[in-house]
Amino acid sequence: MSKSNIIVQKYGGSSVANPKRIAAVAKRIVGYHKKGHDVVVVVSALGDTTDELLKLVRKITRTPSEREIDMLISTGEQISVALLAMAIHRLGYEAKSFTGAQVGIITDSTHTKARIIKINTSTIKRQLAQKNIAIVAGFQGVDVSKEITTLGRGGSDLTAVALAKALKARSCEIYTDVEGIYTADPRIEPKARKLDNVCYDEMLEMASLGAQVLQTRCVELAKRFNIPIVVKSSFTNKGGTMISPEVKAMEKVVVRAVTLNKNEVKITMRDLPDRPGVAAKIFQEIADQGINVDMIVQNISRTGYTDLSFTAAKDNLSKTLRVGRAVSAEIGGGDVIADKDVARLSIVGVGMKSHSGIAAGMFEALADNKINIEMISTSEISISCVIKKKYAVRAVRALHKKFKLDKV
Amino acid sequence: MSKSNIIVQKYGGSSVANPKRIAAVAKRIVGYHKKGHDVVVVVSALGDTTDELLKLVRKITRTPSEREIDMLISTGEQISVALLAMAIHRLGYEAKSFTGAQVGIITDSTHTKARIIKINTSTIKRQLAQKNIAIVAGFQGVDVSKEITTLGRGGSDLTAVALAKALKARSCEIYTDVEGIYTADPRIEPKARKLDNVCYDEMLEMASLGAQVLQTRCVELAKRFNIPIVVKSSFTNKGGTMISPEVKAMEKVVVRAVTLNKNEVKITMRDLPDRPGVAAKIFQEIADQGINVDMIVQNISRTGYTDLSFTAAKDNLSKTLRVGRAVSAEIGGGDVIADKDVARLSIVGVGMKSHSGIAAGMFEALADNKINIEMISTSEISISCVIKKKYAVRAVRALHKKFKLDKV
Repeated sequence: MSKSNIIVQKYGGSSVANPKRIAAVAKRIVGYHKKGHDVVVVVSALGDTTDELLKLVRKITRTPSEREIDMLISTGEQISVALLAMAIHRLGYEAKSFTGAQVGIITDSTHTKARIIKINTSTIKRQLAQKNIAIVAGFQGVDVSKEITTLGRGGSDLTAVALAKALKARSCEIYTDVEGIYTADPRIEPKARKLDNVCYDEMLEMASLGAQVLQTRCVELAKRFNIPIVVKSSFTNKGGTMISPEVKAMEKVVVRAVTLNKNEVKITMRDLPDRPGVAAKIFQEIADQGINVDMIVQNISRTGYTDLSFTAAKDNLSKTLRVGRAVSAEIGGGDVIADKDVARLSIVGVGMKSHSGIAAGMFEALADNKINIEMISTSEISISCVIKKKYAVRAVRALHKKFKLDKV
Repeated sequence: MSKSNIIVQKYGGSSVANPKRIAAVAKRIVGYHKKGHDVVVVVSALGDTTDELLKLVRKITRTPSEREIDMLISTGEQISVALLAMAIHRLGYEAKSFTGAQVGIITDSTHTKARIIKINTSTIKRQLAQKNIAIVAGFQGVDVSKEITTLGRGGSDLTAVALAKALKARSCEIYTDVEGIYTADPRIEPKARKLDNVCYDEMLEMASLGAQVLQTRCVELAKRFNIPIVVKSSFTNKGGTMISPEVKAMEKVVVRAVTLNKNEVKITMRDLPDRPGVAAKIFQEIADQGINVDMIVQNISRTGYTDLSFTAAKDNLSKTLRVGRAVSAEIGGGDVIADKDVARLSIVGVGMKSHSGIAAGMFEALADNKINIEMISTSEISISCVIKKKYAVRAVRALHKKFKLDKV
């Protein structure tokens, strides 16, 4: 990592939800500034501003132009940065706020989910050279024609990581309303323990398996450019979780966390002809509709026919069923049914690469708790089981105990 | 006036206060578009958005940076333009929204009350060439360093007039919640009549004397560039009032309107030494504090001493008293007292230039109604009297009747 003195701090919507919170965040920022850091702050929209704006849209049209959506919702972050700058001035320090356009965050033209192409750092560097705190609107940019764009879900985290990269920052801190990454969701498992370190791959796996704290796009970007991220709370002064390249010490602990995803459904396509090319055709058609499929399991039920199950996001259920039924009819298959009463339970740990017997341990813990496993899939650093939703809490706690995640 | 096909329409905050109103305005705009006009729309912030944002500011700091105020409140118009564009799309027509920065409204760097320096019309002209409706955020611009600026009170009207000038528009229509300019405030005088035509000078005089519909800066700009403005309601389909250069027909009617301003206070500085240079010193000191003084009247009360009265905006009362008392002490004068219980009553009409006896008529009407006159001042096209506030309504009605303003 570079030896610059720049730190990028990102504050999420709950961290700046009201004037009192904004004042608290201002104080924290000034604290870093006083220690001699060059602080660049990225802010999300206040609390639920974005949702409020989208509510207005629904009263006007059901099919809003994505260009105009970006024009509209980018105001949320512009409000935050101005108010935060004022709160810093109130403490007697210099700060200037910038929109994505002003700071030169150049994206492609894919409105509502644009990708950052480059960042012109001169505006920010000029501020830092004058010992000012620079405050940048997260989540937004402009394309080459100066059209306002937004980056999609978790976009402010992306802004922070991309700025850290462009500025060769010493660190990138993501402030949120939890204290870091946990061994399990503390609302489900009260014994869940905050992890001090997690590697990129574990975080990616956890993010895609249901951990809500960071979006995968942000972790991917951090991994690609080797930017260490610290996730911490803006409500406390605790240490947070460092997300960084794999370190040897991590391998000692094999399973690092249990995750749960209740936002998937299980789709089963029955009595498909058991011949080469059937699965390929099905998943091509589904992919063509922009539907992401997750776990896939195939069983032979009677000679010449097969049952195929997969999981997909609950939001896409009706579209997935429509496509599945059309394909099944075309190739002479049977019923396509959906089971919404499922949860995906996973264990994640980069140490699992070099350890055997972990899967057996997971299955044993579930069996001991009389929890039936409906589907299984594995990656190099995770194992996932689909179970009935009603067993989800019991299962998370059973695995947390089995792998001693409450112990350091 | 040019023969272009462009019309600039400005809609104020009450005209776009909610999704229903936005839909109504969209329909009106599309109506003009369908008739073959190239429509450029300027919009203010929704309802009381700006006030809501400033309320947030007051919870954070009492001395906000004006740069950050502009960053903050410019979001209000950005929200309006995006929503209005969506509402037009919903009707099946093409529209694009633009911020002041995007459309190239270049101002000086005086935050919160910037002046427009120039407008780059190429972005709008490109839209019009494609038969799109262009929707521009009012009230805002950028300086040459791309810093966001706002134009101060009535700023969206200024944006509209400046765009009409830059685009050589056929007309400039200011839509509001009243049907035009009236012979008196209809809430005070039910017999008040809408005027079909008013000349720039009358409108300027009326605006500065208390008519709320248009700000003087906007009328000055329209006069300078000879841009006719039509003021009309976005809630009805009536004709409105045309504000344009003086026309002969107007001179027939001598008094055109009665106006009332309750936002001034009368300040009296007592027992000032009656020697040359005293008034100059007083008004220089007051002007140095950025306070605008309006009517000035001086009376000799006893030999060698004089009383001096003037009116100033109520908002500046404490500052005005402070300065007045300091100066009085310095030059050996007496008490400085304020009377908040006053109203300024004026009659306006460009025809007054060439008619005598108007002032006498005004004083007579007030005397007939037992209303005492505290101060008098006149301009070429107006006469103002300061009276006690409690007589204000009676006085307006008396003058409206005296000059037969309810008759065409």
